[in-house]
Amino acid sequence: MKIIRFLSESGKTLYGAYSKRRPGTAEGIEKEPWSKNITGGGEEKIRKLLAPVAPVNILALGINYRKHGEETALSIPSEPILFLKATSSVTGPDHPIVLPAAGSDQVDYEAELALVIGKTAKNVTPAEAWDCIFGFTCANDVSARDWQFERQKGQWARGKSFDTFCPLGPWIVTKDEIDDPDDLAIRAVLNGRTVQESRTSEMIFNVRTIVSRLSRSMTLHPGTVILTGTPEGVGFARRPPVFLKPGDVIRVEIEKIGTLSNRVIAES
Amino acid sequence: MKIIRFLSESGKTLYGAYSKRRPGTAEGIEKEPWSKNITGGGEEKIRKLLAPVAPVNILALGINYRKHGEETALSIPSEPILFLKATSSVTGPDHPIVLPAAGSDQVDYEAELALVIGKTAKNVTPAEAWDCIFGFTCANDVSARDWQFERQKGQWARGKSFDTFCPLGPWIVTKDEIDDPDDLAIRAVLNGRTVQESRTSEMIFNVRTIVSRLSRSMTLHPGTVILTGTPEGVGFARRPPVFLKPGDVIRVEIEKIGTLSNRVIAES
Repeated sequence: MKIIRFLSESGKTLYGAYSKRRPGTAEGIEKEPWSKNITGGGEEKIRKLLAPVAPVNILALGINYRKHGEETALSIPSEPILFLKATSSVTGPDHPIVLPAAGSDQVDYEAELALVIGKTAKNVTPAEAWDCIFGFTCANDVSARDWQFERQKGQWARGKSFDTFCPLGPWIVTKDEIDDPDDLAIRAVLNGRTVQESRTSEMIFNVRTIVSRLSRSMTLHPGTVILTGTPEGVGFARRPPVFLKPGDVIRVEIEKIGTLSNRVIAES
Repeated sequence: MKIIRFLSESGKTLYGAYSKRRPGTAEGIEKEPWSKNITGGGEEKIRKLLAPVAPVNILALGINYRKHGEETALSIPSEPILFLKATSSVTGPDHPIVLPAAGSDQVDYEAELALVIGKTAKNVTPAEAWDCIFGFTCANDVSARDWQFERQKGQWARGKSFDTFCPLGPWIVTKDEIDDPDDLAIRAVLNGRTVQESRTSEMIFNVRTIVSRLSRSMTLHPGTVILTGTPEGVGFARRPPVFLKPGDVIRVEIEKIGTLSNRVIAES
């Protein structure tokens, strides 16, 4: 099933199941789709798609593809390298990525497979982890490289937490539709040109291992979103470097999941 | 006013105003106290105090006291250095700090003044920032130094986001009771011995400046908690180093706000 979150014509924020036959409407429910005792909502007109989840935490991995490790000159980690993005950075499919007035001329894209936790995970094994995953979506871990690397003593959080720097969507594909999340094609396409192209089989820590290892540090509550790292081809590592500018369109495409597309604008 | 959050005898999680005359009861409301149109709740018996806020994001500053910068050998920053703690790390007053089974023998304390945002702040000036602050509480930015410094390629998030690593409380003191948040005595007391002692006047970025600068990066939504950094005297910088062990009691004391006390236990 494809779970969407949307603003309805009547002004409510609702979850629903995407239907190809009726793309402009959905049966809307207010509860998170991983909640218990969900009963069917009424038919609602969709005014606007939102990010398919309002995360309680956004956990993200650094250096989880070998070749991305090479292009950033960071060595292969023996543990998932965690950083956090502020939940206020989330934006939805086809919403703009806003280049901040506070200043950065080094805003970069990062295509990532994201997973959504649906059941509390704490000290789970890789085998148990699957039961805690609700589904998968596309993420763009937008990053202001000057803030990430130079202006924050090496802490990544601020450069990755500007408003709109975490596009998610277009929907959550529930895990029953994904046989093997560790073998999906993933791609970033900037203005029609493929700039990242890899498979999730290239990940250093696979999906179940990520959930297991992180759950040994912290409780993963339902509604937690985990970004699983980006493959090689990011803008700052290209020669010459490529950074996002107003008017650009950046797409994240993941096999069996879908396409997340966002236009870039400057903060007014 | 002192705002508490508590588990009631009837099993509800409620906010209320602390009353010295009747410390075991409060008029409980379900809405956040910074919401509009709050109406008085019924008298409820308090079973257990909780952290006085369930944060939407926990923003925290590194190196915001000069002498702490010196003891950690990090130079004085020209911008607030931001890191995030996972919201799942929050715990309440008199709740235990749990040393994780995942392993760290370098768990450290950090006494910090925390502020709670009550009104959305985006691109505000230092003068406008005051209007967005709801009040203040005590925080302990508990940190596993091995994870913070060695096991995560220098990213601080994982070592600071273990469950129970963000004690908050015992209450929020509303800002009308705090004439000058930039001149309060702050102290950490470990097993009765003062280990950190400073004043918030020693902060590099004061409260209004922190809110203003961060609001230029990101929207500070109501319920955002900001930890304003810790003074000198942390355990890992002492000779010999001091780390938390089961049975320890660590207190954070801030003038005009109160005392946050937590006992340390090992994860079973």
